[in-house]
Amino acid sequence: MNDMRMSPNLALNQLVAQRRAAGESLVHLGFGESRLPPFAPLMERLAAGATRNAYGPVAGSPEVRAAVAGYFGRRNIPTGADQIVVAPGSKPLLMALGLVVPGDVILPRPAWNTYAPQARLAGKHPIAVAIPEECGGVPDPAALRESITAARVLGRDPRILILTLPDNPTGTLAPPALIRELCAIAEEEGLLIVSDEIYRDVVHDPATEFLSPAEVAPASTVVVTGLSKSLALGGWRIGAARFPHGPWGEWIRSGVVSVASEVWSTLAAPMQSVAEYAFGEPEDIRERLRASARLHGAVAREVHRITIAAGARCRPPTGAFYVYPDFEPVRAELGKYEVTDSPTLARRMLDLGIVVLAGHLLGDEGEALRFKCATSMLYGETVEEQQLALDAPDPLALAHVRSLLERVEEGFMRLVP
Amino acid sequence: MNDMRMSPNLALNQLVAQRRAAGESLVHLGFGESRLPPFAPLMERLAAGATRNAYGPVAGSPEVRAAVAGYFGRRNIPTGADQIVVAPGSKPLLMALGLVVPGDVILPRPAWNTYAPQARLAGKHPIAVAIPEECGGVPDPAALRESITAARVLGRDPRILILTLPDNPTGTLAPPALIRELCAIAEEEGLLIVSDEIYRDVVHDPATEFLSPAEVAPASTVVVTGLSKSLALGGWRIGAARFPHGPWGEWIRSGVVSVASEVWSTLAAPMQSVAEYAFGEPEDIRERLRASARLHGAVAREVHRITIAAGARCRPPTGAFYVYPDFEPVRAELGKYEVTDSPTLARRMLDLGIVVLAGHLLGDEGEALRFKCATSMLYGETVEEQQLALDAPDPLALAHVRSLLERVEEGFMRLVP
Repeated sequence: MNDMRMSPNLALNQLVAQRRAAGESLVHLGFGESRLPPFAPLMERLAAGATRNAYGPVAGSPEVRAAVAGYFGRRNIPTGADQIVVAPGSKPLLMALGLVVPGDVILPRPAWNTYAPQARLAGKHPIAVAIPEECGGVPDPAALRESITAARVLGRDPRILILTLPDNPTGTLAPPALIRELCAIAEEEGLLIVSDEIYRDVVHDPATEFLSPAEVAPASTVVVTGLSKSLALGGWRIGAARFPHGPWGEWIRSGVVSVASEVWSTLAAPMQSVAEYAFGEPEDIRERLRASARLHGAVAREVHRITIAAGARCRPPTGAFYVYPDFEPVRAELGKYEVTDSPTLARRMLDLGIVVLAGHLLGDEGEALRFKCATSMLYGETVEEQQLALDAPDPLALAHVRSLLERVEEGFMRLVP
Repeated sequence: MNDMRMSPNLALNQLVAQRRAAGESLVHLGFGESRLPPFAPLMERLAAGATRNAYGPVAGSPEVRAAVAGYFGRRNIPTGADQIVVAPGSKPLLMALGLVVPGDVILPRPAWNTYAPQARLAGKHPIAVAIPEECGGVPDPAALRESITAARVLGRDPRILILTLPDNPTGTLAPPALIRELCAIAEEEGLLIVSDEIYRDVVHDPATEFLSPAEVAPASTVVVTGLSKSLALGGWRIGAARFPHGPWGEWIRSGVVSVASEVWSTLAAPMQSVAEYAFGEPEDIRERLRASARLHGAVAREVHRITIAAGARCRPPTGAFYVYPDFEPVRAELGKYEVTDSPTLARRMLDLGIVVLAGHLLGDEGEALRFKCATSMLYGETVEEQQLALDAPDPLALAHVRSLLERVEEGFMRLVP
């Protein structure tokens, strides 16, 4: 535990709050929060769940586990309630998996900034593998094969492959053919796939084909998810994991339950009431998910357009609420402003009034000119503005959204004037 | 992570639920839950906190940290809000401390069953040291000195000393003179003291003198606490830690915040609303704490009387809601029933209809004839019965409490007929 730092996105969030409190005007695109109001039916469930003050089963009540199992069943992944564990967020579940399953961890590069520190906390080596041209969240297959071989030569023991579907930070979704190819490699190499599907219900176009590794490699895929992103409940800390059917899955699940019993006991019971309702997906929840995905998509596509206009190349976003531009095409021009790498680029964006998360903080190459923009911070400052954005057929036409996007565009256009 | 088991108390709890569902009549004294209704003002705070769906600061909001700081200040431990971290229970805080602070961990023997597994998860060796005759929760000072020397000879590196005040499982409180002696040893030996004070507000007699190691060795004591026990909120998962003032304390705290940011993000924001109110201790909370401690004391003392009548020796309980009898005085008689050690004793109690937690599951010697009884399970099956017990000037006179205690007494008296 040398060089301990706070998770860089949370640290950045606190920094922005401080600078704003000091009067600075900043557009904050550095934090992956869905800035939308809490949904009233879920608030009601939380209040109703307040009578539940007893410790319940570590993995979650039978009812909440059945609801989560149903959620997966409706997504072409037949699941029994005994394959489910709920927890205070998906982070503790990912951490427990790392403590239970031996060996080192393969991550996409770039990836969500928590995977690598968690691997280290669990005594593992993170092995970062470049993503393909077409999408993020998964390693390029050829690079993956090479990295496994190279890691073994170096005495590493890769055993876990983390995939993020759709991806944080690129806002893209790996297509089915690529998933099949990666699952085949994982099975050949004896890797456990951990499929982080927390953004699954934030695929922008409902017609997009989503293939989970749990459909392709069911015996060797653990899926983690949560309500922080799809239902804007980051502050409520609700996560869930689905373990494979069969002895290996049961072994991993019982290990995770063991860690849970020692480290967090269980998901708070009133939050289990919320999770039971949300994962049960009555029509009001389904409509909320659709409306949220529509809004996230519209604003992410607009920010993508801005990054291209500013000279970047950038994968078009199709899920989550991120874009991940690469300013390599204008490296020479940026050099005039002493912008030569990821930290100097992020600092220049800050000077231009735009907070972004530098690519190297996501494990990307430090010399690359890339950063993550969370576009979900552009729906308004107040609950009323955010609700308007959620309800609007064309949120980009709303004055307050337009105004925030104009500030983003101005900032980006001044990057390479 | 070989030999992974669920935390034995939680596992036992699930077993009892299954056997009861199958129709068996059992009195469950094996689970350390305060079986009381949730307090209405706290349910209101949870409902009001439902509007808070955003991620807040990792350590907790300034308001909740100020409330926890005030709680310690009123207990003779002056504290700033920047010394506080809240979390989903005290377990994750204890786990994070183990990940942050290097070296091995010294525990009392017996001790709460989560300390040792957490130490192992963090790659540490737990070093168990016998408790004194007078009370549990702390090592005997002479045995502590010997154990430190012996551990170092064996290549261990003891750096953390866990104290439980009052104690789980013995229900006793280490007196001030003993705390001073242990603090002196800890400071001489360079140990960090982790003082688990989750039962502090469950000292039965308000006149009992409570000395926290944070008063004696302020630079080297971390205090952890929570609302699960004092306010019967186990199912809500609310914990807090207080770190020492000064550079070492700040280093440990920032490490814990770093781990928190990667493993659980923060305590759920609606639960922070609850914690802010509860740690602020308005008069209704203070009265609730007093009433709860009174009830816990009355019932624990009655179960203590029963254990003595049944032939055990047993430290008189003065805090928490446990008694920890030792049936060594009737070992010969118990031998006739093939009861020869901790597992066979607990099994015989189960056959007599009483669920207890065997001493060896708490790190005690396997051959000892000891177990833990959680007496807080005797207040009634329904919320109404439990509320009656809480409100009664003499809870032992209530028919439903009397009836449960009679079943306990019958079971114990049949142990050595």
